[in-house]
Amino acid sequence: MRPFMDEHFLLTTGTAQEMYIAAKNAPIFDWHCHLSPKEIYEDKPFANIGEMWLAGDHYKWRGMRSCGVNEELITGTASWEDKFKAFAACLPKLIGNPLYHWAHLELQAYFGIHTPLSEKTADEIWTQTLELLSDGSYTPRSLIERSNVYALCTTDDPADSLEYHEALLKEDLPYQVLPAFRPDRALAIEAPAFTDSLAALEARVGHAVKTFADLCAALSERIEFFASLGCKACDHAFSYVPYAEAAPEALEGIFAARLAGETLDAKQLDQYRTALMRYLAAEYTRREWGMELHIGPMRNNNRRMFETFGPDGGFDSIDDPAIARPLSAFLGSLDYDGILPRTILFNLNPKDSYTLGTMIGNFQGTECPGKLQYGPAWWFLDHIDGMTAQLQQLGSLGALATFVGMVTDSRSFTSYPRHDYFRRIFCALVGEWVESGKFPNDTDFLKQLAFDVSFGNAKDYFGI
Amino acid sequence: MRPFMDEHFLLTTGTAQEMYIAAKNAPIFDWHCHLSPKEIYEDKPFANIGEMWLAGDHYKWRGMRSCGVNEELITGTASWEDKFKAFAACLPKLIGNPLYHWAHLELQAYFGIHTPLSEKTADEIWTQTLELLSDGSYTPRSLIERSNVYALCTTDDPADSLEYHEALLKEDLPYQVLPAFRPDRALAIEAPAFTDSLAALEARVGHAVKTFADLCAALSERIEFFASLGCKACDHAFSYVPYAEAAPEALEGIFAARLAGETLDAKQLDQYRTALMRYLAAEYTRREWGMELHIGPMRNNNRRMFETFGPDGGFDSIDDPAIARPLSAFLGSLDYDGILPRTILFNLNPKDSYTLGTMIGNFQGTECPGKLQYGPAWWFLDHIDGMTAQLQQLGSLGALATFVGMVTDSRSFTSYPRHDYFRRIFCALVGEWVESGKFPNDTDFLKQLAFDVSFGNAKDYFGI
Amino acid sequence: MRPFMDEHFLLTTGTAQEMYIAAKNAPIFDWHCHLSPKEIYEDKPFANIGEMWLAGDHYKWRGMRSCGVNEELITGTASWEDKFKAFAACLPKLIGNPLYHWAHLELQAYFGIHTPLSEKTADEIWTQTLELLSDGSYTPRSLIERSNVYALCTTDDPADSLEYHEALLKEDLPYQVLPAFRPDRALAIEAPAFTDSLAALEARVGHAVKTFADLCAALSERIEFFASLGCKACDHAFSYVPYAEAAPEALEGIFAARLAGETLDAKQLDQYRTALMRYLAAEYTRREWGMELHIGPMRNNNRRMFETFGPDGGFDSIDDPAIARPLSAFLGSLDYDGILPRTILFNLNPKDSYTLGTMIGNFQGTECPGKLQYGPAWWFLDHIDGMTAQLQQLGSLGALATFVGMVTDSRSFTSYPRHDYFRRIFCALVGEWVESGKFPNDTDFLKQLAFDVSFGNAKDYFGI
Repeated sequence: MRPFMDEHFLLTTGTAQEMYIAAKNAPIFDWHCHLSPKEIYEDKPFANIGEMWLAGDHYKWRGMRSCGVNEELITGTASWEDKFKAFAACLPKLIGNPLYHWAHLELQAYFGIHTPLSEKTADEIWTQTLELLSDGSYTPRSLIERSNVYALCTTDDPADSLEYHEALLKEDLPYQVLPAFRPDRALAIEAPAFTDSLAALEARVGHAVKTFADLCAALSERIEFFASLGCKACDHAFSYVPYAEAAPEALEGIFAARLAGETLDAKQLDQYRTALMRYLAAEYTRREWGMELHIGPMRNNNRRMFETFGPDGGFDSIDDPAIARPLSAFLGSLDYDGILPRTILFNLNPKDSYTLGTMIGNFQGTECPGKLQYGPAWWFLDHIDGMTAQLQQLGSLGALATFVGMVTDSRSFTSYPRHDYFRRIFCALVGEWVESGKFPNDTDFLKQLAFDVSFGNAKDYFGI
Repeated sequence: MRPFMDEHFLLTTGTAQEMYIAAKNAPIFDWHCHLSPKEIYEDKPFANIGEMWLAGDHYKWRGMRSCGVNEELITGTASWEDKFKAFAACLPKLIGNPLYHWAHLELQAYFGIHTPLSEKTADEIWTQTLELLSDGSYTPRSLIERSNVYALCTTDDPADSLEYHEALLKEDLPYQVLPAFRPDRALAIEAPAFTDSLAALEARVGHAVKTFADLCAALSERIEFFASLGCKACDHAFSYVPYAEAAPEALEGIFAARLAGETLDAKQLDQYRTALMRYLAAEYTRREWGMELHIGPMRNNNRRMFETFGPDGGFDSIDDPAIARPLSAFLGSLDYDGILPRTILFNLNPKDSYTLGTMIGNFQGTECPGKLQYGPAWWFLDHIDGMTAQLQQLGSLGALATFVGMVTDSRSFTSYPRHDYFRRIFCALVGEWVESGKFPNDTDFLKQLAFDVSFGNAKDYFGI
Repeated sequence: MRPFMDEHFLLTTGTAQEMYIAAKNAPIFDWHCHLSPKEIYEDKPFANIGEMWLAGDHYKWRGMRSCGVNEELITGTASWEDKFKAFAACLPKLIGNPLYHWAHLELQAYFGIHTPLSEKTADEIWTQTLELLSDGSYTPRSLIERSNVYALCTTDDPADSLEYHEALLKEDLPYQVLPAFRPDRALAIEAPAFTDSLAALEARVGHAVKTFADLCAALSERIEFFASLGCKACDHAFSYVPYAEAAPEALEGIFAARLAGETLDAKQLDQYRTALMRYLAAEYTRREWGMELHIGPMRNNNRRMFETFGPDGGFDSIDDPAIARPLSAFLGSLDYDGILPRTILFNLNPKDSYTLGTMIGNFQGTECPGKLQYGPAWWFLDHIDGMTAQLQQLGSLGALATFVGMVTDSRSFTSYPRHDYFRRIFCALVGEWVESGKFPNDTDFLKQLAFDVSFGNAKDYFGI
């Protein structure tokens, strides 16, 4: 029996352990996350592990709800200590869940605690962590720094001032905090808040946004500004994949109709989103940005909780439309017109894994190895089985050695051990291949591979 | 090499073997099956293993058809001995199929036979079993009793008299035989037999069912009667997931149109089914029943055989519509109105696994741990790979320790070893996690977990 | 650590190694491939490994594109040596891809080379192979012969003269080169080239094809001619599964409309394809042909490359429509009318695996064991994980011992080691089952099983 989560956790072969040395020493480039630049700038110490872990983590909230815990102890007014202890009591019931490993990797990495967390040990661990936190040394910046972060890309609305990114740029930080462009609100023309988001954009660019052309121009200005702060990544949430062509006049008509308060039909929505994405893709291509498409979530399923809590409360799950044809048409249209940027397809529904894994092979290019990427296992797939499946699929269908690797996609400053988790899983898989005679035991190659997939490929891909 | 199906069958680690002791000793609560209460009541001895195994088991029939066997030897007029021997000759060809393991687990559990069954050993095993059966000791009740059954829930139409359940209640049985409410015929408004099923319901409740309101009232009366006999479970077969809202008047219009012989369109069907399910869900919630939704079969594919044999002949397979959006809307509407009962989602199409596994997380509650359940691997997924996948998915996405576990879903009195099969697979999986350092080696916790998932959770969930 | 790809490659147990002896010695019946009968007839020697490997292999082209290689070195005018070296430099980056194993199995089988191919060894291997090829001994026929091929079925248009098949029949070859009937162009009524394909058919049969009845008659004549040359297999590419019934008059109307240049709607396309497939199925049934349906590709995604390169350039991927209902209706209609031939369903999208794996069970027959087959892992699934999954699924859902096994589906004369790859994977899987106590250690049975799935079943199924 192997010990519980020791230094060789998941590293089942000697080859894996050797590769992991190279992986472990690689810095972290977290090219997609949801950290708050304001919080990094302000750098306020965390008071206790309850706040640190449970203030914003909808993964943990869902886990607790699955165990029947009362909302009071999840997002309610209970104390951080009570919330932490409620979470601790749930944790062993989450056996098989990545939350179990994340929690323990974080306890190990940031607190040096190797005791399994449960109802029985919650008191002890609360006290231990409280003591460590008491000197104010657990701040956003210190957590980033001790995680060996090279760079991180936040997620930012086009209308965002990026004031904290600017301020951070002026400090001599040992890591980069870069913005990433996420124009979801501009794409969501059907949303009630669409006009508000236009107003915010108008305020930011200082001119009116009354037409589709105005919108494109405004977004270009913001792209330029994002680029001036080092932005190289952009991101788009697609619950489904829109594709419908339209004449330029039709687009202005759609835009005008929306501003006039009319309800657009499904085809108009697709036409609008297609045209805007095509416009943006051309901009991204010109700047050699990486374009991320996050495909598949179905958000805010629980109306009761949405009305009281709002979005991002842990009430999202996985949608299941067909995506192959619109995605092929969309990427194909960009490729045909020479405006297909480096593109990373994130997949949330395993039914689409092979569709996406083979789609990227249709549109590769010479700009860089793996121009089109099948992105890392994401959200509901971000666990041992999901990451292993993604690596096996990419291996079977593409060129695994060109993979840009892991992101945390997280709102938490203690989520960097997810990179460690990924690296262990990667080394374990390749190690098994080597030791079972499926790949040559070429140590130099394997160490380079571990480094590249952990860090080097992403660095080169985004040119950061 | 491990011996063929010995006591440690599937239990690949010491931890698994230890956990299995707790699992093996747990009683069986078979909360969803298709046993005939009449047959339990009458308790007629089985004459031979051919009748026992092949009289009603469409799994075995399919297996034999896959091997090219003539229908005469499957559901035809051949003797039980010939049918048994034809099945025995097929069995080794079904290598990798759960039928292979089920057959041998049953031979071991009920006859003490450990010889592999094949064409060569069919004679010997026929004779051995015939001898054991000759004293009339293999009856439905004796098989239930020697399987350590705590309770079982049959599957019953609302119009069913439940006379056998009542009669069995009066006997002092060491296990409970409970009805479960399955209103499929009331939901199937488009079926030619719908009017017959209304007539049967009218006869049972003693008043007319001429309106949607009448139907609801009649079903409520039957729910009340089912509850009086200890019913705590209900079940619904969904080939797809219907969801469409409708005004109350529209529902009466739809109902009236159907009674007038009109053909309803797809939207009307969905409106009717949605409204009836919502009505029923409120009733179930009030009584703390568990609501099972069996999603995904496509039945009676073979018209030729359907015309001669009827349903349940082994000609069903798996449908593949999109389900995420209507299912979210349906569960969300129940949740919003406070009428979402404990709900178990059974999945037949692996493409939907993650959609369902994440859907449950949107609607958990404090009534009990795991109020929303991702149900056990079912029908075409009820094998080692399918059960392992379900456990891994539930582990990765939810709280595995709250899982209500296995059901036979069977028409056969010798199918209880499927619980044993499941328990071995569960212990093997968790044992592997522990021995590879993924979970602490906490023996007490692991034994309790094995007991809970085998039995305790289901007992608590249904409150039986 | 096991050595890299030695004689026991993938054979992880003693049982697997023993079974493999039987598998290895079985001849190859490659019942579906895309070899050119003309090239077999002409039997021109290969000049170098670059030409041999890279002249037509879109798998390798995709692999190279994934690594960012310039098209010049893929399908462009670069020398074979440069192309080979570019491919060699990519190969280690394709870790986990079947291309890696195929390349090395081919180097081993045809050149006796056991050195891992990479940028470093490319020179050496180029020289070694060039020397071996220099005496002109590597010709299509010699490669077929040294691969122990019993028979192969090419892929041929109904209008094809089959002149090379006829010529080859007259030679005393130690293997059979049989045509297979692929009427894709006749089914593609919407294609601009449809009228050209009718013209080609008219020229071949010597009479006009102006009506649907004419077309059916012409295809029957060609089927008869194909049969006279030993044809027993036919094949159909289905990007989706069409099913729509139509009156005979309607079909002639559809056909006439197409010839008049009208655009057909989706329903008309389905009606036409359904009717033509039904007509053909009756013909196939009468002759005891095996009908292959290749379901799921989405072809020619990259318009830019299609315009310069044409089809089959490596720009295909996987489509994702729902298929259960039309496929059930189609097969059910054939079964009901007694015109369902032996049928092999090939699947390209893993989301459909269980749908297809259970669909075959609805329509089995007594003509042969496994009349309906869930075909081998194909194209994007033709790798260790895909083949293992297909075997596990077929095992779990059907009668694995009746499986007709592997095909190369290849345009390359050096692709026969894919049969070896499959056989190793099959033996490894079953060996693991036996050694873990899931199946009896019955050596005779296991060796027979290995032989049957490698060769015997396919031979019996097609009656060749």
